[in-house]
Amino acid sequence: MGGDFGPTVTVPAALEALSLHPTLKLLLVGTPAVIMPILSEYNKLSRINRLTVVPTDSVISSNIRPGHAIRISRNTSMRVALELISSGHADACVSAGNTGALMGLSKLILKSIDGIERPALTTLLPYSETGKTVILDLGANIVCNGEMLVQFAIMGSVLSEQILGINNPRVALLNIGSEETKGLDNIRYASKILHNIPLIRYIGYIEANDLLMGKSDVLVCDGFSGNITLKTMEGVIRIILSTMKLSGKQYNKLRWFTKLIRFLLNKYFFNKFSRLHPDWYNGAHLVGLKSTVIKSHGAANRRAFVSAIKQAIHSIECRVPEKIFTRLRTVLSKKDS
Amino acid sequence: MGGDFGPTVTVPAALEALSLHPTLKLLLVGTPAVIMPILSEYNKLSRINRLTVVPTDSVISSNIRPGHAIRISRNTSMRVALELISSGHADACVSAGNTGALMGLSKLILKSIDGIERPALTTLLPYSETGKTVILDLGANIVCNGEMLVQFAIMGSVLSEQILGINNPRVALLNIGSEETKGLDNIRYASKILHNIPLIRYIGYIEANDLLMGKSDVLVCDGFSGNITLKTMEGVIRIILSTMKLSGKQYNKLRWFTKLIRFLLNKYFFNKFSRLHPDWYNGAHLVGLKSTVIKSHGAANRRAFVSAIKQAIHSIECRVPEKIFTRLRTVLSKKDS
Repeated sequence: MGGDFGPTVTVPAALEALSLHPTLKLLLVGTPAVIMPILSEYNKLSRINRLTVVPTDSVISSNIRPGHAIRISRNTSMRVALELISSGHADACVSAGNTGALMGLSKLILKSIDGIERPALTTLLPYSETGKTVILDLGANIVCNGEMLVQFAIMGSVLSEQILGINNPRVALLNIGSEETKGLDNIRYASKILHNIPLIRYIGYIEANDLLMGKSDVLVCDGFSGNITLKTMEGVIRIILSTMKLSGKQYNKLRWFTKLIRFLLNKYFFNKFSRLHPDWYNGAHLVGLKSTVIKSHGAANRRAFVSAIKQAIHSIECRVPEKIFTRLRTVLSKKDS
Repeated sequence: MGGDFGPTVTVPAALEALSLHPTLKLLLVGTPAVIMPILSEYNKLSRINRLTVVPTDSVISSNIRPGHAIRISRNTSMRVALELISSGHADACVSAGNTGALMGLSKLILKSIDGIERPALTTLLPYSETGKTVILDLGANIVCNGEMLVQFAIMGSVLSEQILGINNPRVALLNIGSEETKGLDNIRYASKILHNIPLIRYIGYIEANDLLMGKSDVLVCDGFSGNITLKTMEGVIRIILSTMKLSGKQYNKLRWFTKLIRFLLNKYFFNKFSRLHPDWYNGAHLVGLKSTVIKSHGAANRRAFVSAIKQAIHSIECRVPEKIFTRLRTVLSKKDS
């Protein structure tokens, strides 16, 4: 159990998820010396019976290179959790640990779906109260060729259909202009290919200022761009939401009328924009693998980690990996014929 | 006079700039048939004497490739405006036209400062009521090698010192993690070099979620990342500010108390965040050239275009190009010695 806060966040989150989903069973993979004292606080809850601790020796730290992490991964919580899937003891893995290591180990242990060059990290960005855009890649592949972007488009379409229930989702490529001549070579290459895949409803380029305008159901980019785009948005939203908060001391100094205004303002703002707070849509699918793996923010709090567990449940229920495999086979067979 | 709205925006903006700066003289370069009818509305103003129309035949359209634009640029408003600088008739050029063409023609006609591989687009992002971060590149160079990022860091430092008056500005590289091992090869290379330049106060990597935290005075990135980072921020801010607005009809339906709350809320929000609205900091310096060139947003409105003109005035007053040349020579001589 990695991430910035380890079991102090993930254990309470696991218990909350068990309470929300009565048929859910969870395996907590990590160091018992850290997990057990936190778990002991919840001993009296009956749902603790649906929770099993799988003991491991160590955790992969967040700042080592993926290649090195994989070499020293034996008996780490991340590797053991993934091995529980490959041995049939678990259906999905949720981790707040080192993204590169999770990607590398997932590929090694769970394998990619045939035809997928590299799995991608993806999230469901809420652009309105009901609408969501599937964005990928968010940082698993910081350098992508055009073929990879095309594969991301196919996987994103399946996610949009299966998880969000969108029929014939609109797919776009993130670029720095809307004209065909704009952008990097890999993007222009992917655009050309996507125009010729009838099973994908490709609508062209979208610029980053239209991210929250709901213009596409799937937005495809390389992992570097996806990461900085999403982090920029999160940063702006966090700053704006935090501006609304006052410390207790500051609040006590206000007059009653100002307190009322503050209260209404906060309520209005929270209703309008809290959906854009990273906590509410935490949980990035590592799509393109033969099983479900969800990456949580390293700095996720309890609420955010529960949201990541929910995404894992949803992906298992919708059988996302199988659906991607089938779609890919259909697209490739049409392409070859 | 290009841009999305052409002289309908730029002519009134020019007149406002003349009113704000009593010693300013402006040359309006463009098609007289379009400019003159708009200008005729202001005939009675005395400041119109400080304005000269330089007639040209055509405008470079915003969606043609830079290479082609340059080949057909003879007697276009953009080319003529830049030639007015090289012939000594103007000190700076402000354009809302095709960014790639402006970059290409500026390099061709005005030339880069010795030692600068490629000029960069940069803006001053207001992260607080008084603090600003110089960000570059914003899209002039969508592919950058490590050396170019180092040059951007040097130019950004000079801009921060000269335009913002910051002593020994903190310089950071935009990346997807804070550890040295993270990110693309060019970023890691630039980081290594910057650590060894004593004249630059290099502080390491900054992630996009810290963009508005004021952690650095200069933020360096390739043009693709810079463009999508800034556009993401603009998109989020625009959406939030637009949510605060109601149509006249919607407003009239509200009760007096709700109207009052609305009024206070808008006032509060405007005071807090209007500085982040693109109109207030429009105007990207094309730094690294031997003269001052300012690129305005294509979709800039009057207020935003005035802001771009102000930046040109400021750059001329601070003699930015000369200062960059001197700094670069100092850094290179220290490096060689």
